[in-house]
Amino acid sequence: SKNILNTYGNRGMTLENEIVETNKFYLDTNIAVIHKKPTPVQVVQVDYPKRSAAVIKEAYYRRPSTTDFNGLYKGRYIDFEAKETNNKTSLPFSNIHDHQVEHMRNVDQHGGICFFIIRFKPLNETYLLPIRPFIRAWDTEFDGKRKSLPYTFIKEKGFEIPFRLQAKVDYIKVIEKVYINGGD
Amino acid sequence: SKNILNTYGNRGMTLENEIVETNKFYLDTNIAVIHKKPTPVQVVQVDYPKRSAAVIKEAYYRRPSTTDFNGLYKGRYIDFEAKETNNKTSLPFSNIHDHQVEHMRNVDQHGGICFFIIRFKPLNETYLLPIRPFIRAWDTEFDGKRKSLPYTFIKEKGFEIPFRLQAKVDYIKVIEKVYINGGD
Ligand SMILES: [Mg+2]
Ligand SMILES: [Mg+2]
Repeated sequence: SKNILNTYGNRGMTLENEIVETNKFYLDTNIAVIHKKPTPVQVVQVDYPKRSAAVIKEAYYRRPSTTDFNGLYKGRYIDFEAKETNNKTSLPFSNIHDHQVEHMRNVDQHGGICFFIIRFKPLNETYLLPIRPFIRAWDTEFDGKRKSLPYTFIKEKGFEIPFRLQAKVDYIKVIEKVYINGGD
Repeated sequence: SKNILNTYGNRGMTLENEIVETNKFYLDTNIAVIHKKPTPVQVVQVDYPKRSAAVIKEAYYRRPSTTDFNGLYKGRYIDFEAKETNNKTSLPFSNIHDHQVEHMRNVDQHGGICFFIIRFKPLNETYLLPIRPFIRAWDTEFDGKRKSLPYTFIKEKGFEIPFRLQAKVDYIKVIEKVYINGGD
């Protein structure tokens, strides 16, 4: 059954890694060109040993100024952020930064396809939440009041992402339905 | 005169930094959303001191699997690689990797806008070279024979990028002309 496969498929793999693997499948099968951006690092000190590769000796993680993933599907610009939570009832806002939301707002305003992929790990459910309902919630209902996005909100405004063995987070299926064939 | 400004503007700044600054201008003035991707780093060892930020103690530069820059302009996906050379007569192929060309080919096939930005530093000239003439050269005339792309080829198939004080590499002007209003 789907559930058995799903449990098997997810075992030990982060959402991010499953998306990376899914993107590889999309690329190999000529469906879409979507990549994870490297984690930004501030390099402070580098050694250049003779006859071998440069070694970074001191560096610090920097805050990403954009999102985790972007790319191209059927000529459209795709941009999204992946979040997973151990919570069953809400996604904490604590892991979502202002500048990421600003970036996603910009992408939407310039005609890109922009969304979150949100996984509730204890429920084994993964949703695509378009940026617009998220922004409305962020700007009005929740800003300064709530500290999280309720599961019920995500379930109502989002779209559950189907699982396939070769595309564990098969979000292109949802993009096709929601953005390409109209809707949202 | 343009030349004086140009010389002044370029002083000590790499092409890549000028593009980053231009992108900031595009973002601030709501023209386009284009970012440089972080340099990919393979982290081997990290220290987690108490009460301060994680320190990366050993890491190595990895080869980028895609290009330097991507983003969004008027709903279109934009993807490009920046190269500068001290040569006056050609751009050496040595700095262009197979996997980058593969990526750019994929972007073109999926309907993205894809190109090189090439600067001949001694000439103080910067060109946008669309991916298609580049690919034709890469696949046929030069592959295995030539080791560089001639200046004359780039000047003929490419488009000189104008300089503005606020947008030192004003490539959106060229995109507008070549891709949005037709041409290429
Ligand atoms: Mg994330
Ligand atoms: Mg480059």
